[in-house]
Amino acid sequence: MRVLVLGGDGYLGWPTALHLSARGHDVGIADNFVRRQYDRELGVESLVPIHTLDARVDRWAELSGNRMPTYVGDLCDADFVHSMVRDFAPDTIVHFAEQRSAPYSMIDQQHAVYTQTNNVVGTLNLLYAIAEADRDIHLVKLGTMGEYGTPNIDIEEGWLTVTHRGRTDTVLYPKRPGSFYHLSKVHDSHNIEFACRVWGLRATDLNQGVVYGQRTDETALDPVLETRFDYDHVFGTVLNRFVIQAVLGHPLTVYGSGGQTRGILNLVDTVECIRLATENPAEPGEFRVFNQFTEQLSVRELAEKVSHAYPGRCRIEEVDNPRVELESHYYRAAHTRLLDLGLVPHLVSETLIDSMFSIVEGHKDRVNLDAIRPTVKWRTTASELAGTA
Amino acid sequence: MRVLVLGGDGYLGWPTALHLSARGHDVGIADNFVRRQYDRELGVESLVPIHTLDARVDRWAELSGNRMPTYVGDLCDADFVHSMVRDFAPDTIVHFAEQRSAPYSMIDQQHAVYTQTNNVVGTLNLLYAIAEADRDIHLVKLGTMGEYGTPNIDIEEGWLTVTHRGRTDTVLYPKRPGSFYHLSKVHDSHNIEFACRVWGLRATDLNQGVVYGQRTDETALDPVLETRFDYDHVFGTVLNRFVIQAVLGHPLTVYGSGGQTRGILNLVDTVECIRLATENPAEPGEFRVFNQFTEQLSVRELAEKVSHAYPGRCRIEEVDNPRVELESHYYRAAHTRLLDLGLVPHLVSETLIDSMFSIVEGHKDRVNLDAIRPTVKWRTTASELAGTA
Repeated sequence: MRVLVLGGDGYLGWPTALHLSARGHDVGIADNFVRRQYDRELGVESLVPIHTLDARVDRWAELSGNRMPTYVGDLCDADFVHSMVRDFAPDTIVHFAEQRSAPYSMIDQQHAVYTQTNNVVGTLNLLYAIAEADRDIHLVKLGTMGEYGTPNIDIEEGWLTVTHRGRTDTVLYPKRPGSFYHLSKVHDSHNIEFACRVWGLRATDLNQGVVYGQRTDETALDPVLETRFDYDHVFGTVLNRFVIQAVLGHPLTVYGSGGQTRGILNLVDTVECIRLATENPAEPGEFRVFNQFTEQLSVRELAEKVSHAYPGRCRIEEVDNPRVELESHYYRAAHTRLLDLGLVPHLVSETLIDSMFSIVEGHKDRVNLDAIRPTVKWRTTASELAGTA
Repeated sequence: MRVLVLGGDGYLGWPTALHLSARGHDVGIADNFVRRQYDRELGVESLVPIHTLDARVDRWAELSGNRMPTYVGDLCDADFVHSMVRDFAPDTIVHFAEQRSAPYSMIDQQHAVYTQTNNVVGTLNLLYAIAEADRDIHLVKLGTMGEYGTPNIDIEEGWLTVTHRGRTDTVLYPKRPGSFYHLSKVHDSHNIEFACRVWGLRATDLNQGVVYGQRTDETALDPVLETRFDYDHVFGTVLNRFVIQAVLGHPLTVYGSGGQTRGILNLVDTVECIRLATENPAEPGEFRVFNQFTEQLSVRELAEKVSHAYPGRCRIEEVDNPRVELESHYYRAAHTRLLDLGLVPHLVSETLIDSMFSIVEGHKDRVNLDAIRPTVKWRTTASELAGTA
């Protein structure tokens, strides 16, 4: 299949492009490199050095014989999106190309507006481009489990059958997300569902959990092919942060009591989920939602797993929660549809955590500990950024 | 109370400002006049000539002794919003200042992106301005009944108590709207609910039905105080369009079979609903939703009422439905919360329709019949605009 990966220079987009290419698909990559720009804005860097997209693509072509064409541009530029879609003529578009950090969206008014505008307008332009170029193109869109929030009822996969006053309907699962970033994904989901309804588009919305890990079979082939490893408080995800804190002898900082339960998954499962969604497309007019995670754990349980796996001393410390979220809540989310398509999960294990320790050991001179302290506070409207100090 | 009416130069914003001023509130008005600009873009005009905002405000000051300060600017300009909110120091902000036409949002990609950006960013800027200036300001935001779509279960007022797999929660009512415009209001609702949760703001989301009528006690005092009367297929609402068609001897054009049922209300009830919401504010942190309409009728029933009231010959004609919507569906929506606050509804009656006939008679030489034919088609991505021919 011809697969266009939007945001293909990013943490997950790059390994996904490699994985699909390795599995025989014709892959194209689009990016505007704004993720690299956020690093400069925040004064932080990926723990693992990353190479330019050109260098990555060249090395992959040498190793695999597959050259992935690249499109450099912004999804908010409608002309760019239209001409790219017509030029590449994809069967599937995998859409990672959004601002993906909750704290980034909560820095201040400008970052909130940027996040919602960038994400919503980019996706709108993409929907129009698909509707105009070829309504048969399957859109595989990255959403987030954070769209749901933490309801007191079971979370289903995108739709909920409700009986109310004796009548029944299947409705979009009600959302109550926890940041302007998460809200942007809720807006996207509503817009995409509408496009499926009026234009007959086919879409899969992947409500992904928190991703951890840094290596896949393909990125491990060569240092030039490695993907990002972020640990800063804005873009770093929780397990990756804990591993770095452990190696540096820093306490594992849990926000509040750590009772927040979330769905998580390994990077190697992310790329496999994308492949499964791509190779098993939604029907015309179908807005299909998969909850893309493999296990659910509380933040404290994650910290304990890392602490237990680490051979040296390792302490867990509760810090004031910068977010507004429940720290003790019911959480049970369905996640069977990707398993039904054949996903074989890699659960978090000491072996995996050990391998992450060794990645950090190799680069620990690059760590800026200041970047870990959370300075973006949900209850204020303008936060300082420690990383830029 | 000090009440700032955003979009106070528009069809509903202007009569609302007058009504609140007449009831003794200190009213300020903000507008960027983009509604007048849409007329020029579409090549149409309000049936009733409208005067400049300055002339209207001057005449009201002469008649009432109350001068309403005006702020000319765009809500997408964050600095403008912040300085206006600090300068006027309102107790309540009534927010009408959004692009409010579903067909306008469905013209093409640019109009869809404009509608969502304009509405969502304007409201985000307002939420930040309130959070920074005074979190006690009550936001009264105009939403639409169209946010809900036409579910097969009863529509409640904003929230729904769901029992699922033996557990119960009260969740935001699931939305499935029918245009990019309606979607922009859904996005707003989610953003506002979040702002109430994290910043403790107080907000009332008024999910309003289709408004008809053109006169209130205050606008009837002087021709300079009249409000808009739109009949074109982009901005004209259904009952107003039917009345004009009847007077002109044109068939009343029903989209499809006309079985679409909607909540409707008279302009005089709109301004009263806003007063009631303003004088009975939401609690700090509360995201309160009222369904703002007084009766529900199908489009065909509305056409029959107009046809019956009209003294001359009047025919009803089904035209191809340009929209994607169910033409036969269950519809039952709660609307008791404004009645509980004291609303005394003015239901659609022959007397009212007669008074509308006489307004049209007085201006029928201004009608451009070409502007009535619906040319914006939901299933296409780029529509012609008859009005601009």
